[in-house]
Amino acid sequence: MTAEIIDGKAFAAGVRARVGEEVARLKQGHGITPGLAVILVGEDPASQVYVKNKGLQTVEAGMNSYEHKLPADVSEEELSALIERLNADEAVHGILCQFPVPDHLSETEIVARIDPAKDVDGLHVENIGLLASGQQGMVPCTPLGCLMLLRDRLGDLSGKEALVIGRSNLMGKPMGQLLLRDSCTVTIAHSRTADLAAVARRADIVVAAVGRAQMVKGDWLKPGATVIDVGINRIPAPERGEGKTRLVGDCDFDSCAEVAGAITPVPGGVGPMTIACLLANTLTACCRANGLPAPEGLTA
Amino acid sequence: MTAEIIDGKAFAAGVRARVGEEVARLKQGHGITPGLAVILVGEDPASQVYVKNKGLQTVEAGMNSYEHKLPADVSEEELSALIERLNADEAVHGILCQFPVPDHLSETEIVARIDPAKDVDGLHVENIGLLASGQQGMVPCTPLGCLMLLRDRLGDLSGKEALVIGRSNLMGKPMGQLLLRDSCTVTIAHSRTADLAAVARRADIVVAAVGRAQMVKGDWLKPGATVIDVGINRIPAPERGEGKTRLVGDCDFDSCAEVAGAITPVPGGVGPMTIACLLANTLTACCRANGLPAPEGLTA
Repeated sequence: MTAEIIDGKAFAAGVRARVGEEVARLKQGHGITPGLAVILVGEDPASQVYVKNKGLQTVEAGMNSYEHKLPADVSEEELSALIERLNADEAVHGILCQFPVPDHLSETEIVARIDPAKDVDGLHVENIGLLASGQQGMVPCTPLGCLMLLRDRLGDLSGKEALVIGRSNLMGKPMGQLLLRDSCTVTIAHSRTADLAAVARRADIVVAAVGRAQMVKGDWLKPGATVIDVGINRIPAPERGEGKTRLVGDCDFDSCAEVAGAITPVPGGVGPMTIACLLANTLTACCRANGLPAPEGLTA
Repeated sequence: MTAEIIDGKAFAAGVRARVGEEVARLKQGHGITPGLAVILVGEDPASQVYVKNKGLQTVEAGMNSYEHKLPADVSEEELSALIERLNADEAVHGILCQFPVPDHLSETEIVARIDPAKDVDGLHVENIGLLASGQQGMVPCTPLGCLMLLRDRLGDLSGKEALVIGRSNLMGKPMGQLLLRDSCTVTIAHSRTADLAAVARRADIVVAAVGRAQMVKGDWLKPGATVIDVGINRIPAPERGEGKTRLVGDCDFDSCAEVAGAITPVPGGVGPMTIACLLANTLTACCRANGLPAPEGLTA
């Protein structure tokens, strides 16, 4: 068997286009433009690239983008005051603070200050609680993106055996909640799991989110399984020249692609879904803030 | 194999005794007496029995018990005002409202009004979020009781394959979180699970919480598995006389006891742990409210 390659880049472009259409409809029908505020503290180069991309894609979808760049030594009080202003600002429907932040600031406390209804990263403890109890809230972007890819590939997920490898708060745990909500039989495995290969072999769906390069091997998979690879690991690539590197996932792509029914590549799989889902979440938050039904298929 | 019967009644008595010792220490060392406030709306006979038992056991453990009985037609405003008073009352460390409440009241809104730090039932969305993200909060009593029985029987749970059957917000989901926190490989199964018997057969730990009498059969179990039966179902018992009934769990006790290594009976297994853990939670909440370390082994 040779797996179908799930083109996350194309799928994400489709999600962004759909968000754009719904934004246009909101503007025309209700005179409302969704707005996303992004806070960047300091000058971390990678963060600057992310924030720039988020801003570009936000505007491309027809939404307003508000960037707030704060110096690396900004006080907790100033940052809190900004978040309070954004919480109160009716033009802002989504707020996110780009992490990591400098050491003198607490990520937990920053997230706790964001109005849960505007927490488009889905990190606020209230949103975690809503997700964990099957209630409506804001869902973290990357797990939401994985769910969209799975639903697109498999249709109804009910009754499927799903394995999530990794139990992080950002990815593994919310992914498990989402798969459970879609009525999968859900297993969460992690570094203490006794025989991960055996556990993986029983799964129709494998979501790998451990951050260990090429850990999941093809002979761990049930033939035909759908594999979502969330890992992004940089490894040496001497074949490309001295000192060169390349990106790989948590799955050993070549061997997995021989057994799986479908698999996401790295890069170009889950990665592009994250910002697409951030835009989708901002649209959803905007609709809810205005008492309008959120568009279907863009949240969990 | 004939399973060891896990005596939840005796274990719960031990937990209550331990809570009593810690309460005595708090009184002597710090002049603090933990207090539990229970709100009962209306005159449901079963609820009256529960509340009375809670009150008796609270006092027996040396804590203060405050019972607030409200008429069935109490307004939401009056109930909310009571909760606000209890939230502000420094002598009250735990608050619970006995459910069900009459239809004109919303259980979700009642729970949302309780200060999460005093939510000894662990039902507040903030406590659900804290549990789901591995942070310190108040943990629901029945799952906590199951965890205590498992730790007592098995010691370190790390790496064990645990199956939770049932995905309710009160039991299945928090149980899964607790087992994951103790580093089990956790599977959550439910009514949509394709082959529950096969899923059960791979588990070292089975927690059954579905509310279906005698559903789990002995030949579904891995020999030596530890079985925690959370179900309490009343079934006809004609062998005891015409019209007689008896209580059974979600597991078919006789066949399961032949395969399991240990199993909780119904009644006398998980049941008595719930109030014991309510007392433990009240003690924990009291210690935290006073900036004192919570006693070990009495929470997750």
